[in-house]
Amino acid sequence: MDWKTKISDSNPNGAVIRGYDLEELMQHKSFTETIFLLLQGHLPNEQQTKMLNAIFVSSIDHGIAVASITSARTALSGGSPLQAGVAAGILSIGDFHGGAIEGAAKMLQQNKDTPAAQIVKQFVEQKKRIPGYGHKIYKSADPRAQKLLQIAEELGIAAEYCDKAQDIQNELLAQTEKQLPLNVDGAIAAIISDMQFDWRVGKGLFIIARTPGIVAHLHEEMDEKPVRRLDNYEYAGEKGKKLP
Amino acid sequence: MDWKTKISDSNPNGAVIRGYDLEELMQHKSFTETIFLLLQGHLPNEQQTKMLNAIFVSSIDHGIAVASITSARTALSGGSPLQAGVAAGILSIGDFHGGAIEGAAKMLQQNKDTPAAQIVKQFVEQKKRIPGYGHKIYKSADPRAQKLLQIAEELGIAAEYCDKAQDIQNELLAQTEKQLPLNVDGAIAAIISDMQFDWRVGKGLFIIARTPGIVAHLHEEMDEKPVRRLDNYEYAGEKGKKLP
Amino acid sequence: MDWKTKISDSNPNGAVIRGYDLEELMQHKSFTETIFLLLQGHLPNEQQTKMLNAIFVSSIDHGIAVASITSARTALSGGSPLQAGVAAGILSIGDFHGGAIEGAAKMLQQNKDTPAAQIVKQFVEQKKRIPGYGHKIYKSADPRAQKLLQIAEELGIAAEYCDKAQDIQNELLAQTEKQLPLNVDGAIAAIISDMQFDWRVGKGLFIIARTPGIVAHLHEEMDEKPVRRLDNYEYAGEKGKKLP
Amino acid sequence: MDWKTKISDSNPNGAVIRGYDLEELMQHKSFTETIFLLLQGHLPNEQQTKMLNAIFVSSIDHGIAVASITSARTALSGGSPLQAGVAAGILSIGDFHGGAIEGAAKMLQQNKDTPAAQIVKQFVEQKKRIPGYGHKIYKSADPRAQKLLQIAEELGIAAEYCDKAQDIQNELLAQTEKQLPLNVDGAIAAIISDMQFDWRVGKGLFIIARTPGIVAHLHEEMDEKPVRRLDNYEYAGEKGKKLP
Repeated sequence: MDWKTKISDSNPNGAVIRGYDLEELMQHKSFTETIFLLLQGHLPNEQQTKMLNAIFVSSIDHGIAVASITSARTALSGGSPLQAGVAAGILSIGDFHGGAIEGAAKMLQQNKDTPAAQIVKQFVEQKKRIPGYGHKIYKSADPRAQKLLQIAEELGIAAEYCDKAQDIQNELLAQTEKQLPLNVDGAIAAIISDMQFDWRVGKGLFIIARTPGIVAHLHEEMDEKPVRRLDNYEYAGEKGKKLP
Repeated sequence: MDWKTKISDSNPNGAVIRGYDLEELMQHKSFTETIFLLLQGHLPNEQQTKMLNAIFVSSIDHGIAVASITSARTALSGGSPLQAGVAAGILSIGDFHGGAIEGAAKMLQQNKDTPAAQIVKQFVEQKKRIPGYGHKIYKSADPRAQKLLQIAEELGIAAEYCDKAQDIQNELLAQTEKQLPLNVDGAIAAIISDMQFDWRVGKGLFIIARTPGIVAHLHEEMDEKPVRRLDNYEYAGEKGKKLP
Repeated sequence: MDWKTKISDSNPNGAVIRGYDLEELMQHKSFTETIFLLLQGHLPNEQQTKMLNAIFVSSIDHGIAVASITSARTALSGGSPLQAGVAAGILSIGDFHGGAIEGAAKMLQQNKDTPAAQIVKQFVEQKKRIPGYGHKIYKSADPRAQKLLQIAEELGIAAEYCDKAQDIQNELLAQTEKQLPLNVDGAIAAIISDMQFDWRVGKGLFIIARTPGIVAHLHEEMDEKPVRRLDNYEYAGEKGKKLP
Repeated sequence: MDWKTKISDSNPNGAVIRGYDLEELMQHKSFTETIFLLLQGHLPNEQQTKMLNAIFVSSIDHGIAVASITSARTALSGGSPLQAGVAAGILSIGDFHGGAIEGAAKMLQQNKDTPAAQIVKQFVEQKKRIPGYGHKIYKSADPRAQKLLQIAEELGIAAEYCDKAQDIQNELLAQTEKQLPLNVDGAIAAIISDMQFDWRVGKGLFIIARTPGIVAHLHEEMDEKPVRRLDNYEYAGEKGKKLP
């Protein structure tokens, strides 16, 4: 099968990212600016760079108790090298852990021209949850979501998708009489949509953000004793069966 | 880079494994026999097949508390599909979890012509642990190791490597005055060495054996609620620092 | 989160799989029988064991050119250990590579009481492909599918799902006037459904089967020079852009 | 096993990274600064931030032909989700692909007080390659290494390890009469050592840098047809064998 790319190239004369010389990027552009360039094909302005930094930092690490960290540290503890631990951590990032960013961005972008009331009506009729809304602990407002939206507002990034995301929150209250606040995944989804990111890189942005957190935890795990083992579980199956 | 293989081929006229027609193998040979064929290049006899079955069954699943199962179930719980969960489980299989099979087989095969006393002397002088010896719980004898060696004995598989493995156990006691019994990893290492398996597939045999256990646990995990989260941990780091 | 399992346990007194003592299984049951036990909770009879062996052997290895092997060998060539290569190989097993087993088994099991004609009508109306039918090369009949169905017939395993699978093939011809023969994924899906396997382990059976093939290829790759690099690709992107 | 961390925490009152409030970091610190904080435990100064940006950008993406990209795109092409593709890509990052950073940093840090001449003498006597030196194409000087060292010089980052790295290059020429220039991996190793990074995160820095490149390539792969298959390979094994 043919291998073809428009993203980058590297040969003895140098490397190029989206048309720019890699050595020039090294000298003049930050990691975050170059990530934006890679994913969108053009350089960000100052506001977009600040916004993307805020999004990455918001997801960089949420402690040892989350699935992506415990699976990573468990894998490393068995004696696998760092790259294997990072992979095991990233494999925990799915529809229920970081994945709502993608789900919410897809919902917003695919319903660009549908009014909030109608979007909510469809989900309510199908008895489906709208991705990006509701939080186990924050019943009325998710502070991290609000902080990101405030930054997006200040930077002039917030536009139609951020508006729509908040309209949906209001419609949810009106139509279901339940408070289902826009959560941090939903806020990131709305902001990256206003920044013209394809919803299909939503999970990718979360993975980029979380990888340094995984690496830091694996570095710490290197000083722990092998091998992680559950110290509390229940065997609820059969016992004492005899072979025929 | 050139891609070349001596193992297998598949084309519209059919598939071949080590020279044999795949459809004939399907009809006349078991999974275990075909695994032996794949890895060694020739078909096993009846004793080798029984021995390999016993080795695979011995490692197939040791409960929910081990690293390969908890990392797999944690990954799936985040919303990733089955293949991602299996991969996360296999990534926990390293030098400290299943990996001693490879270490012990390497030690045995690379010291084929070295007397047991001298092997032990070298490890003792370098203050290194000999892989495949010692067990947290079984201080004098590991029952699973003994069962495997007994089967190898009965089938006429046990030969120079099984003898050497037991000589090393005796030398360890003589030279260190500590009981470090041959454990299940060490027993498998000795037996597969007597079966002419390259030590470099030692970890591979364990991975083949454990994959069905991981799949069974992931099937069970599919009915659990997302997302796995540690309910007991300690944050021992700093708090309340202010940005400059 | 609570960890609970009905599958297996292991403690200093021994290990148990679905109620049976692991040491007894080692001595009396094959790898394939124990895999069946793990996944279904009871031991297979002789016919089920033969059938499962045939299914595993049919999928064990299809050469170096398929995605699961090239991704595995590429990963190992970068210097990662065996377990990382196996994981990279398994990660290539998705909806389009081995995954049709799961899709077809789901379709069959969820339409247990729906006549073949109606199933086909629904897919045709929605302009969707029915998983498990059609083959790039075999336009009228997939020989490996036929061989598996013949074995299922001979062993008395083939029942309602195998019948339904063939009815669907006939209906496809009748309703679309296209020959879309039951392929090997579809045949496995029908047979495992008649063996009472949950469709949700369909991809898992393929992964179990293919893991030894991946290990064999990685063993071969260990003697190749690092690092795999495409020797033929096209850079179709921009060049010579200047930073502002 | 006890789970304990000094890195980060998250609870309903907010999240903390190395003692700093996550919301404050979101607002005031860049992604790169927060990565430095995560890995080193304190915030970087302006020069360190610029240097780390240059290192990340230098490794972010080197085209479609490298192992980490082809394994990632191959995995995705089989129908697995983004996170599985990213994991497959990262699993290609090993001792021979990105891993020399770690090897070279280890060599430098573990020989902190050994003169360059003696380090080279040891490697030469053991007939081992010194990690971080030599390049397939650049026989006398690796331009990317030189650019990074120049930036390190300008920022006042370059210190004892950068000096040592260049002394080793000179000693290699003197003792072996071969030109083995410090390559980009070796230059990064020297610079991160002068920045006080533990050599055990060397591969981690490369993984963090490359993850966005992998995500960008997977985004592009989403529009390709499934499934990647080698179109050129050789089957060099046996044929036409008959079962006994």
